Amino acid sequence: MLSKLVASCFISLAIAQAQQQPRIVSPEVHSDRRVTFRLRAPNAKEVMVSGQVTPKPAPLTKDEQGVWSVTLGPLEPDLYGYTFRVDGLSTSDPSNPFLQTGIRGYSSAVIIKGDTPTAWDARSVPHGAVHRHHYDSKVVGDLRAFTVYTPPQYDAMSNTRYPVFYLLHGSGDDDTTWVDFGRANFILDNLIADSKAKPMIVVMPYGQMVPPADQSRTGRINERFEQDLLTEVLPRVEKLYKVDTSADKRAIVGLSMGGGQSLWTGLNNLDRFAWVGGFSSSTRQVNGEERIEKALADPKAVNKRAKLLWIAIGKEDTLLKGNDEFAAWLKTQGITHTYQVTEGAHNWRVWRRYLAELTPQLFR
Amino acid sequence: MLSKLVASCFISLAIAQAQQQPRIVSPEVHSDRRVTFRLRAPNAKEVMVSGQVTPKPAPLTKDEQGVWSVTLGPLEPDLYGYTFRVDGLSTSDPSNPFLQTGIRGYSSAVIIKGDTPTAWDARSVPHGAVHRHHYDSKVVGDLRAFTVYTPPQYDAMSNTRYPVFYLLHGSGDDDTTWVDFGRANFILDNLIADSKAKPMIVVMPYGQMVPPADQSRTGRINERFEQDLLTEVLPRVEKLYKVDTSADKRAIVGLSMGGGQSLWTGLNNLDRFAWVGGFSSSTRQVNGEERIEKALADPKAVNKRAKLLWIAIGKEDTLLKGNDEFAAWLKTQGITHTYQVTEGAHNWRVWRRYLAELTPQLFR
Repeated sequence: MLSKLVASCFISLAIAQAQQQPRIVSPEVHSDRRVTFRLRAPNAKEVMVSGQVTPKPAPLTKDEQGVWSVTLGPLEPDLYGYTFRVDGLSTSDPSNPFLQTGIRGYSSAVIIKGDTPTAWDARSVPHGAVHRHHYDSKVVGDLRAFTVYTPPQYDAMSNTRYPVFYLLHGSGDDDTTWVDFGRANFILDNLIADSKAKPMIVVMPYGQMVPPADQSRTGRINERFEQDLLTEVLPRVEKLYKVDTSADKRAIVGLSMGGGQSLWTGLNNLDRFAWVGGFSSSTRQVNGEERIEKALADPKAVNKRAKLLWIAIGKEDTLLKGNDEFAAWLKTQGITHTYQVTEGAHNWRVWRRYLAELTPQLFR
Repeated sequence: MLSKLVASCFISLAIAQAQQQPRIVSPEVHSDRRVTFRLRAPNAKEVMVSGQVTPKPAPLTKDEQGVWSVTLGPLEPDLYGYTFRVDGLSTSDPSNPFLQTGIRGYSSAVIIKGDTPTAWDARSVPHGAVHRHHYDSKVVGDLRAFTVYTPPQYDAMSNTRYPVFYLLHGSGDDDTTWVDFGRANFILDNLIADSKAKPMIVVMPYGQMVPPADQSRTGRINERFEQDLLTEVLPRVEKLYKVDTSADKRAIVGLSMGGGQSLWTGLNNLDRFAWVGGFSSSTRQVNGEERIEKALADPKAVNKRAKLLWIAIGKEDTLLKGNDEFAAWLKTQGITHTYQVTEGAHNWRVWRRYLAELTPQLFR
């Protein structure tokens, strides 16, 4: 299923078109980790490729059939996003079915494999399952969903109970993004197979708060997220799955907007979540917030309850300053925490690595 | 979550671009069921929209900001696919996150709502859950997945057992397409809420057979699919879920390539599947096949075992002739069956309706 087969009846004009003309292969990943991008655009004057595959937009050149191409790299083994720009038009790669989708847009993606598997490669190890549950949220007033990973060992009919890791997405994502693009299921499969992480359930709630008119009021959005998680999602999870409901067996971690939500919800509810983390977090959701300051006012009590407070961000991330400030404030307050400033920017190349690094530390 | 919110950090150049310029809304569905499509392409000479939204490609016109637009309709309430053509370039709509994805390409999609909900609308009724399981197939030799719908009533910890409906996708799809684009989960939710269908489990296996070199040998592909379903998927389903394992409580139905597979697998295994159907089926997978002729050689026995043989296809479908032939052959043989030639062509507008029409007939 990872190989892309010839489809005889796929209903799309893009495909009908491709069937009439020689099929384009794009991206083509070479054995030396270079990658060739191609686009059929016979009438274009300029085609560029941009994204994580190139430090700056790279021009393609046109052949006599009207197909533009460029070869980049060699690139480090990783999963990269990219887009094309055709004269004034931004577009994803019509020849490539592998996409990063989101609530507002989408872009193309490519995997560069190395000699050894990455943390997020689908290896031949026992695989957990991924579940999606829709619910009508009384808190938010809409139809929402949450996604759940159960480990390979999980058996709904046995009495073994598992710790639960609440894992939150960013502001362009939905509850499926951590699996579909973050490859959280494969990361967990691999860590569990290698005995690096405890078998655990991962719950990925939907973090967008409606109505949009309220988006400007950070505190209120955080509180609505917190309320939806605690009163709608958490009880459903604990009814549907065999989970350990003690605080020591609950973690909450998110990325970007979800990092702000996980720090807010976790630090304000340490009696429920003993493990708290933020990846490239939107710290304006917590910096200077009165409820956070009150919740952390007694550092001795906080340090006793919190098993881990783990914060990480890339050097090139525009949210670095806010994370520096939050980490400095935690230090001033005497709150035990880990603060890592790593290579990288505000994207999934960093977040997959953070998940692979943090998960082994949980529930120890 | 059905409304698309403003995303502040979505990592895509297409979006960064949109943030610098006034944001385009496309598609914009009006209250009178007309729909406006828009695309920013300041340097293009010609932009067309094609697909199910228009009988023939419709030209867009450019405004002074370089944004092209056209308003079509009013359209019947439905879920439609469409693509743009910009000079020589085929592209989906970069402003619209709702996509039909597949193993080889993708296109844009739009929902036109009517005054009353369609069979596939997400209504405020109890929702079932959707599960995805990866497995290493010994039969095919690759990592594959199957998707499972459990009805709202389903409780893994109770002893109630449910009938199972095996529902197969087409040649451009994967195991997620019946849910993501076919909206099988919402169709089942609605039918069950309205007491029109029995609560049932729906299993959506992955139907692509590798290696591609073998694609030309129809019989062998069918047999490999049959073997993977019967020896890899079915035992896993019956281990993981509370299912009734009698033939009278098993159905198999598919669309297009999957219709060929469901007719092949179902009719060759009536001792396992008493309910068999094909939507817009690729009948070259069964017409004149020796094993099918043998399996159906005793019409009395077949008519006793098969509770339903349901075949449907649209008038405008290029596979009509093969379906006519197969239905005529069944008639000659004295095999009881339902053959419906309906409005429509080879696309999801037809398949969602067939699912809503067939499912109430199962397991009666």
